[in-house]
Amino acid sequence: MPDFAATHRATLDGAIAAIRARGHWSAYPEIPSGKVYGETAKVEGEAAFQAMLNGHFETGQAAESWVGEETSPFGPALGITYPANTPGTLVARGGAAMPAWAAAPVEDRAGIALEALHRINRASFLMANAVMHTTGQAFAMAFQAGGPHAQDRGLEAVAYAVEEISRIPGAARWSKPAGRETLVMDKTWRAVPRGVAVTIGCATFPTWNGYPGIFASLVTGNPVIVKPHPKAILPLALSVRVLREVLAEAGLPADVVQLAPDTIEAPITARLAKHPDVAIVDFTGGPTFGRWLRENLGPGKALFTEEAGVNPVVLHSTADFAGLCRNLAFSLSLYSGQMCTAPQNIFVPSGGIQTDQGHRSFDEVGAAIAAAVDALLADPARAAGILGAIQNPATVDRVAAARSLGQVVRNSAPVEGAPGRTATPLLLAVNAADRDAWMEERFGPIAFLIRCAEAEEALALAAGSARERGAITALVHSTDEAFLDRATEAFTRVGASLSVNLTGGVYVNQSAAFSDYHVSGANPAGNACLTDAAFVANRFHVAQVRRPAVAA
Amino acid sequence: MPDFAATHRATLDGAIAAIRARGHWSAYPEIPSGKVYGETAKVEGEAAFQAMLNGHFETGQAAESWVGEETSPFGPALGITYPANTPGTLVARGGAAMPAWAAAPVEDRAGIALEALHRINRASFLMANAVMHTTGQAFAMAFQAGGPHAQDRGLEAVAYAVEEISRIPGAARWSKPAGRETLVMDKTWRAVPRGVAVTIGCATFPTWNGYPGIFASLVTGNPVIVKPHPKAILPLALSVRVLREVLAEAGLPADVVQLAPDTIEAPITARLAKHPDVAIVDFTGGPTFGRWLRENLGPGKALFTEEAGVNPVVLHSTADFAGLCRNLAFSLSLYSGQMCTAPQNIFVPSGGIQTDQGHRSFDEVGAAIAAAVDALLADPARAAGILGAIQNPATVDRVAAARSLGQVVRNSAPVEGAPGRTATPLLLAVNAADRDAWMEERFGPIAFLIRCAEAEEALALAAGSARERGAITALVHSTDEAFLDRATEAFTRVGASLSVNLTGGVYVNQSAAFSDYHVSGANPAGNACLTDAAFVANRFHVAQVRRPAVAA
Repeated sequence: MPDFAATHRATLDGAIAAIRARGHWSAYPEIPSGKVYGETAKVEGEAAFQAMLNGHFETGQAAESWVGEETSPFGPALGITYPANTPGTLVARGGAAMPAWAAAPVEDRAGIALEALHRINRASFLMANAVMHTTGQAFAMAFQAGGPHAQDRGLEAVAYAVEEISRIPGAARWSKPAGRETLVMDKTWRAVPRGVAVTIGCATFPTWNGYPGIFASLVTGNPVIVKPHPKAILPLALSVRVLREVLAEAGLPADVVQLAPDTIEAPITARLAKHPDVAIVDFTGGPTFGRWLRENLGPGKALFTEEAGVNPVVLHSTADFAGLCRNLAFSLSLYSGQMCTAPQNIFVPSGGIQTDQGHRSFDEVGAAIAAAVDALLADPARAAGILGAIQNPATVDRVAAARSLGQVVRNSAPVEGAPGRTATPLLLAVNAADRDAWMEERFGPIAFLIRCAEAEEALALAAGSARERGAITALVHSTDEAFLDRATEAFTRVGASLSVNLTGGVYVNQSAAFSDYHVSGANPAGNACLTDAAFVANRFHVAQVRRPAVAA
Repeated sequence: MPDFAATHRATLDGAIAAIRARGHWSAYPEIPSGKVYGETAKVEGEAAFQAMLNGHFETGQAAESWVGEETSPFGPALGITYPANTPGTLVARGGAAMPAWAAAPVEDRAGIALEALHRINRASFLMANAVMHTTGQAFAMAFQAGGPHAQDRGLEAVAYAVEEISRIPGAARWSKPAGRETLVMDKTWRAVPRGVAVTIGCATFPTWNGYPGIFASLVTGNPVIVKPHPKAILPLALSVRVLREVLAEAGLPADVVQLAPDTIEAPITARLAKHPDVAIVDFTGGPTFGRWLRENLGPGKALFTEEAGVNPVVLHSTADFAGLCRNLAFSLSLYSGQMCTAPQNIFVPSGGIQTDQGHRSFDEVGAAIAAAVDALLADPARAAGILGAIQNPATVDRVAAARSLGQVVRNSAPVEGAPGRTATPLLLAVNAADRDAWMEERFGPIAFLIRCAEAEEALALAAGSARERGAITALVHSTDEAFLDRATEAFTRVGASLSVNLTGGVYVNQSAAFSDYHVSGANPAGNACLTDAAFVANRFHVAQVRRPAVAA
């Protein structure tokens, strides 16, 4: 086979160093530039996407049927159909592919993963179109989050998997003095995959959320069945196709990775996940199905989830009120709040907050944030580039229904002249007591300005909501270091990643591979972190064989 | 506080190197010698044990009641009572102790663990008496397995916990070029404990099986409630008392570790494990309660189990038939088969096997193993020293009932003149089709000689039984390397640790800390390994705080 491991050794070494140091590091350039990706890449990427529309998407899998019902949130139906199989067929094929894959050294598995990531990276413009027209992300974000950033997350999982497995020695001689004799045994160890893995993708970040589980399972030796969301198949189908190509070139079974598309009407996810030969399930999606998985998968299966949360913001005081408002406006607007890291609940003391511009009342804080959103989105073209489109029609309905939950501080509206489903942020003022309104994830461009007795209550409510309903991120603004210490303690305990005093070009929504641990696993927003040691260590077991080295 | 970390740094460094290299290594001398432990240690240990009988055992916990009902399998009731509390009290106290413990640096937590292990080690003769008179282990084994070997297992968990947490940097500066500006963030990370941990002990190896979970939870920052088996409280009570002493000397809350004794009549385990503030459960025991835990603990709790199994032996051929029989006789006899690693099912081709003594028929193989057991146990004093006593009267009943399950090749009997409950191995010949007889764990000195069509069927049945009913160990004898390769593949897949051609002084029952991975987690014999990265990595989460380093 081609020596993919050697080709990409420097990338892997860099990634392994990065997950230790956790400064800024990236393997895949995030700028959609012709200088990086080739001057014709943009045009070719779009052309390749257009050529796929209204056709069969071949992955090389023998199809039992063809399914596909994707529609771009920006308008047209994609008309692409994908090869579909029953859960039984998929699991049987994965199981058949497993022995060869498990027998490949971890270096080779990692090499194949890295070559696939490299090829996926080269096709980032095509991927950007695929992500844009399934998720509704604007082009720039679809390129970055669906392309290089997702690839970095995949590479991060490869690095963790390689490192964890490399810590198990292949062999050792065990030599123990026992009275007059010495007992000598030769021992060998092998990391053995748990079994067929299933990754259940989501409709908003199919690659970014999907790659960590896919690559963690693969590099630890498990075959992977990729079950995309019925509305966002293409990005993962493209990824699966590349992986299958590289596997085949390496002389390994392409069925190590399979695509498992289904439809909203005839879903296969539950049957697939429950199949007795499935050993690992990675899931990104809502808490209802998350709970179903926890209760129904059965013993002996490893389950990694990212579900939902109510990400809080606590406003105590600030030395840069304008920056606070600008920064928060962007976080509320980016991809119309359809990020698992987007803030939903802004806890503000009823007495207002101290700022560099003097005291600001609760109402003034609300008005200033609303004004910052208005300013950010004043230009429709810029607004469309930040907001993207609304992935799911149900989210538009949710925005409409949410208006009655509080006092409208800023109303939501479509973006003028923008194609597809769009909606600017809805900002509602409510009281802390209105828990039915804010204590539940309202996915999409819906945020609450929550009137609290004072900042300590704001902090307590924010941390409590993270503990009870989950939170991936938290944002606190304060000029008081003692308050920040208390906030650090509170969010540390409930497992929400805390950002402090963001007023510039870093946003609470952003989670950078190799530096930010995404999801703590310590509250209902998810049971696993992308990516830490626990995310990979349970995807394999250690097999041992021991044998006398000499006649004892 | 005393710098326990500095005192024991060399021990910790040695342990961390050992879990990587996995050759022979040990921190605590296994020989019950006056030269090592002090010439008066043996006498003093026994005197200290005698002085504890028929008294209150103080741990410093405020008792809501006093319980205790231990009886030595060698005869007398111990008459010791221990401070007992309700689950609510225990969990509340553990929760109150957590913040201080979580805030202690991992080096300090490890130092305290190492100091406690050191003191426990110095009291190994007392521990040997405690283990002997609760588990029924003979003195030599009680000393080794209950003392130094258990301490090594605890230290191994400390090493894994330290290593896993040390891989998370405390802080980093993230600096990312973004057009003309550079985004700079200061980030900090902390390993945060999951919450109150409960270790549910067993009656046969209370320390050896209990320490890994206790020390893994502790060093990752979780307070631990130690729930011993009602019939084997003393060994864990001694351990808890030492830990509480060291904690107090270090100026930390003693309630970081608590004892939770109960009785057979009024068990608290289920309520304790289900308590909403309990986050981690380590369990050693039967599969019935193991399943109850899996189904009832609820989401968000980490569960680590060692349950039951049917450890197989496959006889294909041998170059040392006498050694095979001697070695296997010892494995069947040691502690009367009451080890989770003891073989139960010996699969033999109906046509017999090739040996260095020529061909041996199925019946001849059975007769030779029986004769080897007889020879090993011919001297009653030696027999008592190998067999120990039967921990649970139910095991004696099980042996009696088992006689009807097959043709008796070697009968079980008490050891002549030995005190307490004793029983030599029962060896029964059955057919492969008699699955109701052998396909279930028959805990104690009960083994089956299973007549198989040929060696390939023996291997298939052995591996299948491990997959379906669990197995921690497997033993294969063969002079055919191709057969051994197939056996390696088969047991690797089903997660049973394979020993090959043991004919000398190493036995399939033995699992050496720092070298042997104990339990794979890949079959019903347990879901976790003592100890690997997965055993510790999920006992904490990573908390993150990030903040602009300069105004952006």
